[in-house]
Amino acid sequence: MSTVRLLSDDEIRRSPEAWAVFEDIRATRKSDFVNNFWRALANDPPRMRSVWEQLKTVMMAEGELSPLVREMIYIAVSTANGCSYCVHSHTASARAKGMTDGQHAELLAVMAMASQTNALATALQVPVDDAFHVK
Amino acid sequence: MSTVRLLSDDEIRRSPEAWAVFEDIRATRKSDFVNNFWRALANDPPRMRSVWEQLKTVMMAEGELSPLVREMIYIAVSTANGCSYCVHSHTASARAKGMTDGQHAELLAVMAMASQTNALATALQVPVDDAFHVK
Amino acid sequence: MSTVRLLSDDEIRRSPEAWAVFEDIRATRKSDFVNNFWRALANDPPRMRSVWEQLKTVMMAEGELSPLVREMIYIAVSTANGCSYCVHSHTASARAKGMTDGQHAELLAVMAMASQTNALATALQVPVDDAFHVK
Amino acid sequence: MSTVRLLSDDEIRRSPEAWAVFEDIRATRKSDFVNNFWRALANDPPRMRSVWEQLKTVMMAEGELSPLVREMIYIAVSTANGCSYCVHSHTASARAKGMTDGQHAELLAVMAMASQTNALATALQVPVDDAFHVK
Amino acid sequence: MSTVRLLSDDEIRRSPEAWAVFEDIRATRKSDFVNNFWRALANDPPRMRSVWEQLKTVMMAEGELSPLVREMIYIAVSTANGCSYCVHSHTASARAKGMTDGQHAELLAVMAMASQTNALATALQVPVDDAFHVK
Amino acid sequence: MSTVRLLSDDEIRRSPEAWAVFEDIRATRKSDFVNNFWRALANDPPRMRSVWEQLKTVMMAEGELSPLVREMIYIAVSTANGCSYCVHSHTASARAKGMTDGQHAELLAVMAMASQTNALATALQVPVDDAFHVK
Repeated sequence: MSTVRLLSDDEIRRSPEAWAVFEDIRATRKSDFVNNFWRALANDPPRMRSVWEQLKTVMMAEGELSPLVREMIYIAVSTANGCSYCVHSHTASARAKGMTDGQHAELLAVMAMASQTNALATALQVPVDDAFHVK
Repeated sequence: MSTVRLLSDDEIRRSPEAWAVFEDIRATRKSDFVNNFWRALANDPPRMRSVWEQLKTVMMAEGELSPLVREMIYIAVSTANGCSYCVHSHTASARAKGMTDGQHAELLAVMAMASQTNALATALQVPVDDAFHVK
Repeated sequence: MSTVRLLSDDEIRRSPEAWAVFEDIRATRKSDFVNNFWRALANDPPRMRSVWEQLKTVMMAEGELSPLVREMIYIAVSTANGCSYCVHSHTASARAKGMTDGQHAELLAVMAMASQTNALATALQVPVDDAFHVK
Repeated sequence: MSTVRLLSDDEIRRSPEAWAVFEDIRATRKSDFVNNFWRALANDPPRMRSVWEQLKTVMMAEGELSPLVREMIYIAVSTANGCSYCVHSHTASARAKGMTDGQHAELLAVMAMASQTNALATALQVPVDDAFHVK
Repeated sequence: MSTVRLLSDDEIRRSPEAWAVFEDIRATRKSDFVNNFWRALANDPPRMRSVWEQLKTVMMAEGELSPLVREMIYIAVSTANGCSYCVHSHTASARAKGMTDGQHAELLAVMAMASQTNALATALQVPVDDAFHVK
Repeated sequence: MSTVRLLSDDEIRRSPEAWAVFEDIRATRKSDFVNNFWRALANDPPRMRSVWEQLKTVMMAEGELSPLVREMIYIAVSTANGCSYCVHSHTASARAKGMTDGQHAELLAVMAMASQTNALATALQVPVDDAFHVK
């Protein structure tokens, strides 16, 4: 269904660079399962590696936002961008990181609220208040 | 600059329904400042009231997500939807609720990461893994 | 502010193809005012002519939807696509075609409603019901 | 396929709040069929009720725009936002409210036209004409 | 699955205008295969003809950009707009016009890069530098 | 106007990491001018460095697509995402890399064409042809 082939483990093993990423994904997640996104990206091993390295830094490194909050922001962006795959995969990730049904429901409520006022502010072409400008 | 007139306090006072919302906004926020979004929406008092009531419930009611996390999700959606006004107003709100520069930077990093993989997953048309489907 | 020069009447007159479109815009709208969109597009006269011809057909030809309903649909699309210029110009067009404040308010209410449920349906990844498939 | 379970009638009946909405949907639409969107939203009964109440007001209350025009605006927004589910369900709703093939074709023509000029105006970054600003 | 019926050859043959387009598509592409987009559009023969004529001009006429570069731009827009069908059909077209795996990978890298900085510039609301304004 | 302060050279010099990026931008572009995007990003030096390193690789490294073609793809994505700043800055970059008025006009024509058929394919919910699936 994809626009490139989804590579099997055997095919990925042929590229040492891609295989090293696969092994790191499995070690980092402590799971043998590697989802289709990486099997598609594996067609371009340097990019696969670059995306994985960024993802580890942005989503898992120590920081001021918890990994779960980061996943919820990821879901919000993916929803607004209409990326089905990303909504599915990051909702699963957020659940794996402990997102409760109540938190999911609140996340959806905020997204619905923002989408509604985004439409209103754009249709009304409201000028930005001076008070909101950073000096 | 807007597509409807931004109403002054004197004009809003003429509609008891709109004025009641204005007074509630000021009381709730403990500030006299009311931003342009409401001055535009005030042209349709029932809608203004409905949006304000929803906003209070969704953004301020007791819940599992902190008000600050909700504001950060709001910024994420507004950015993806390209709503300049909303990005400005909710970044200001998030700061008023205590968002640090570090949290803002991490929020932006997650948004940038998600936007990047959204584009990749859509361009690759990656099929959703069975493991992600809720049964 | 634009990414191409906005051409003055004198500059447009140098291209007979662009000038013919300008004269047709003025005659069709019974007004001397020609808005910036056409002054930008005039840098590519064949495209300018093609867009204008399509616009006349799609927005003004006899049909089952009134010209005002078509303008309101145009505003809805432009808002969702975040095109400030288009929101401004087509809100002005809709008003020129008789849109009342009440109709504008209802248009905004529908857009806000749709934006909200679009976010929910996408975040929930709701599968399309069989009943909705056209056979 | 969704990110939450689609609830059956038996499951929804366990929440009096959700079941009351279900019964109102059936009574309002004079049909036993309740589409998947509501079976997904039923996981959060207060939100389900809130969305349904808003939808009844915005889409069905007396107003200046006909219910069919409102459905066509809904389709336009849903298309621009890329919400497959919403395009399907509201195209079906519009047909149920009498949308002819000719009206559907004109709706699509306006959406295509707007999308095209939205892209041009954004790529050209055309500044908004003074004449379009509401004073 | 579509919101209109996908017409078979036999049904399309009943409209001389639609059939003429079908024959031109086959002759132009030197292939009997006509994809679903046209079978859906064939429900509105004048629009089908108009879209096909524009497409031939924009995508195939002599010009300064090669047909392959135009296809890659088409993929970029379709991805950002979240149009699954268009991503699939134009990736296939680009391959038919000679797009290599390496070019596809670079196209995806640029799209991912742009999506990332689009999010950052919008979240930061960076004001346009004077140097970028065309005088 | 931005949501963070735009840093001056003197302020950026205080962070050795940010200043090193600034010096590399100036050396790479052989110009003293550094645009506002970097003055905003400089508030988060590690992110600034990461984005700049990626940008150099994706947009300037040897590859199968010319730097100009990459810039045109960047403009296409930025337009579809409605990022004003990015449209302005990358149109300027594309011109600096030799984009002619004719190439710019063709780029806009392809974007307009794609946006139009994206809307049609989404509104019609055309199912992907088997022939387009990569096996």
